[in-house]
Amino acid sequence: MKIDNVDFFYLAMPKVTTDADGSQDALLVRVQAGSHVGWGECEASPLTSIASYVCPMSHGSCRPVAESVLGQPLNDPSDIARIRASVQFNSMDLLQAAHTFSGIEVALWDALGKSLGEPAYRLLGYKSAVPKLAYASQLFGNTPAETEAKAKAAREAGFRAVKFGWVNYGRGSVAEDAAHVEAARAGMGSDAEVLIDAGQIFAQEVEAAAKRLPALERFGVVWLEEPFLPDALAAYGALADRSRKVGMAGGEGCHSAPMALNLIDFGKVGFIQIDAGRIGGLGPAKEVADHAVAKGVTFVNHTFTSHLALSASIQPYAGLADHRIAEYPFAPSALARNLTVNHIMPDKDGMIRLPDGPGLAMMVNTAALHPYLKEVEIAVGGRTLFRSSALPV
Amino acid sequence: MKIDNVDFFYLAMPKVTTDADGSQDALLVRVQAGSHVGWGECEASPLTSIASYVCPMSHGSCRPVAESVLGQPLNDPSDIARIRASVQFNSMDLLQAAHTFSGIEVALWDALGKSLGEPAYRLLGYKSAVPKLAYASQLFGNTPAETEAKAKAAREAGFRAVKFGWVNYGRGSVAEDAAHVEAARAGMGSDAEVLIDAGQIFAQEVEAAAKRLPALERFGVVWLEEPFLPDALAAYGALADRSRKVGMAGGEGCHSAPMALNLIDFGKVGFIQIDAGRIGGLGPAKEVADHAVAKGVTFVNHTFTSHLALSASIQPYAGLADHRIAEYPFAPSALARNLTVNHIMPDKDGMIRLPDGPGLAMMVNTAALHPYLKEVEIAVGGRTLFRSSALPV
Repeated sequence: MKIDNVDFFYLAMPKVTTDADGSQDALLVRVQAGSHVGWGECEASPLTSIASYVCPMSHGSCRPVAESVLGQPLNDPSDIARIRASVQFNSMDLLQAAHTFSGIEVALWDALGKSLGEPAYRLLGYKSAVPKLAYASQLFGNTPAETEAKAKAAREAGFRAVKFGWVNYGRGSVAEDAAHVEAARAGMGSDAEVLIDAGQIFAQEVEAAAKRLPALERFGVVWLEEPFLPDALAAYGALADRSRKVGMAGGEGCHSAPMALNLIDFGKVGFIQIDAGRIGGLGPAKEVADHAVAKGVTFVNHTFTSHLALSASIQPYAGLADHRIAEYPFAPSALARNLTVNHIMPDKDGMIRLPDGPGLAMMVNTAALHPYLKEVEIAVGGRTLFRSSALPV
Repeated sequence: MKIDNVDFFYLAMPKVTTDADGSQDALLVRVQAGSHVGWGECEASPLTSIASYVCPMSHGSCRPVAESVLGQPLNDPSDIARIRASVQFNSMDLLQAAHTFSGIEVALWDALGKSLGEPAYRLLGYKSAVPKLAYASQLFGNTPAETEAKAKAAREAGFRAVKFGWVNYGRGSVAEDAAHVEAARAGMGSDAEVLIDAGQIFAQEVEAAAKRLPALERFGVVWLEEPFLPDALAAYGALADRSRKVGMAGGEGCHSAPMALNLIDFGKVGFIQIDAGRIGGLGPAKEVADHAVAKGVTFVNHTFTSHLALSASIQPYAGLADHRIAEYPFAPSALARNLTVNHIMPDKDGMIRLPDGPGLAMMVNTAALHPYLKEVEIAVGGRTLFRSSALPV
C-alpha cells in the first residue's frame, strides 16, 4: 500500500490555561494507506505543526513535511525508516518538522500494524509486551498539604509510584521545595517510589539544582527530572557527578535520537524519558531504548496526555522487562480522556499492560471529539494550503 | 521604550527550487519600539515561524512567541536577555520558537542600538569591529570543471578564501568527491583558503566521512563542515579524533547556545558556525563566541542570505581579531541582494568590514521588496490570528 492521505485534527479544551498541563489540547493525526487507517498524536503546538506540514518550500533542505510523506509506499518497517530519513534531510532547516513528523510516524506504525496484523511493539522487534509499574504523574500542589493530599489520592487509587512536578518547585526556597518533597513521601508512604520533576526551572544553574539534592536524598526520591534546559549537557553531567543516590532524568525535550543519546553519553542521565510524539516517533524512540540498554540507563516513556499517546510511548520499550516504570497521566483533561474509546488501566498492583491488538491497539473516539475540534485555515499568496478536514462521526 | 509592534514579512523569489540555496526566500522582521524601528531576519521557514508567533497557547510552557515579546520594556541589553529567557521558558515545548525569536531578537538589538546611538557589537561588549577575511560561500558545480570555474570566478572577484558545499558531495564515490576538492584548489590557487561543506550528507556514518579525509588533507582544506546531523556529537567527536590536519566545522543547525556549546565541548569542532537567525539571535551567539574563545575554538558566522543577516551574524564576534574568517554569500538571489540598500563589500584584499552606524547599520530596502511579498492569512476557529501587514513604500 501507499500513503494516500494525512489529516490533522486540532483539538482543544474550551479554556486553555497557563497550567503546565499538556493535555489541554492535542494534535491528532490520521494516516490513510490503502484500506487501513492509522492514528497518532503530536505532542506539540497544533497550529505550528500543521504549518510545517503544508508550508511552501524555502529551498531543498527546508521543504514541507508533506513532501517526504504523501504517496510513499508503506509495506514494512523499512519504509517508515526511509520516510524518516527523507524528512530528516529534506526538512533539515525546518525546526518544527520533528514534532510534526512524530505524530505521522506513530500513525504509520499503527496503519502498518493493522495491515500486517501485528502490534507495533512486535514490528519494533519485541516478542511480547511486559507489564509496567505505572507512576501517577501530576503537578505539585500549591502548598505541601495539597501535595500530600494528591499523593494520598494516588496511593488510594492503587498507584505505587508517583511523580510531582512544576508549579512552585525551584521558584522559592530550598526549604519550601523540601517541604513539598517531604509531603509527597508522607502521602505515598515509605514503600512507594517518589519522583520529582523540576521542569527545566534551573536552566543551566548547577548550584541552584545541587542545593535540592539533600532533601531529595533524605526522602528517598528515585530521580530528579529535567533540572535544566534539554540540551544543557554540561550542567546535567555536573549535577550527575554531584548526586550520590538520586538519578538524573530527562529527555522529553529531545526531538531527535542523537539528542537523547547525547543526554545518556554526555549528560550522564540515569533515566532517559522519551515522548514518541516529539522525538520523531517510535523508530527513533526504539533507537534510544537500544542505546539505553547498551549503556545501562533506564528507558521511560514520557506521556502527559491521551491513552493513544500512552500506547505509542510505551511501544518502544514494551519488551524491556528491566525497564519497568512508566509515566501514567493521573489527571488528564476531559479531551485527553475522551480521545480514545479504550483505556490502559492500572491493575490492583499499580501495573499497566499494553492492549492486545494490531498497531497501537487504541480506538480513537472520533464521535466524542467534535466539541473539541478547532477549524484551521492557512492561506499564502491567496492560495489555501490547509483547511481542516471533517472529523468522522 | 517598550515593544509596541512586531511584523513579519514573508518574501520569496517567484520560483523556489530544490537547490540548497537558502536565499530563495526570507522572513523579514520589523520591531517598533517607541520612535525606533529595528529589523531582523529569521533564517527559517517563513510560514511555520509566523505560526509559532501567533499560535494559540497549548499550555503554560507552550505559549506563542508573541506573548513573551509584545509590550515588554526595551531600554538596555538586559531587557533583551530577559525576553529571551522568557521565550525559552514560556515556549519550551514550541520547537519552532527558537527560529522565530531569532529574527525578533536581532531586530531588538537593531532598535535598541538606534535608540542608544550604538552599533550592536558595542552593546554586546566589543570596543570595535575588526575586518574579516570573507570567504566566497557557494554550491559545488555539477562537474569538477564547473567547480574549478566557480573557484576561478571567486578568485578573480578578489576572494582569498572559498567554500564549496552540497550538490553531489558525499553522494557519489570518494574519488568523485576528491576530484571536486582538487578542482576547487586548482581554481583558487595554492595560497588561498579552501573549505568544504558536506551538508549533513553522512548523517551519523563516521566511516563514510572518514574516507574523504585524505583528499581534504592532500589539497590543504581548512575545514570539513557539517559532515553529520547537527546533534550527532559522538560522530563529530569520532571524526575529529581521526583527522590530523582538517578541522571539523559545524553549528549552523544549532537553535540554542547550549547546543553549540555541546558541539565544542563534546563534538570537538575546531570551528563553530553560528547563524544569528537560528540560534536565538545575537545574545546566544555572543555566548557561543565567548565559549569558543575560552576553549580555543574559532567562531565563524553562518550566512547564506541577505546583508541584513550578514551584519547580524558578524556582530557577535565583530571584535575578535583572532577569529578572522567570515562566511560571505557569493551568489545570493535577487531577493537577498535587494533586501538592503547598503551592502558589505569585500575590499581588494578580500576583507569585509561591518558598516559604521547604530544597531546593525543596514538600511532595509522596503520599496524594492514589494514584488517578493507573499500575503499570509492564518485563522483558527474562525478567528484571524495573522494577516500580513502592508510593507512601507
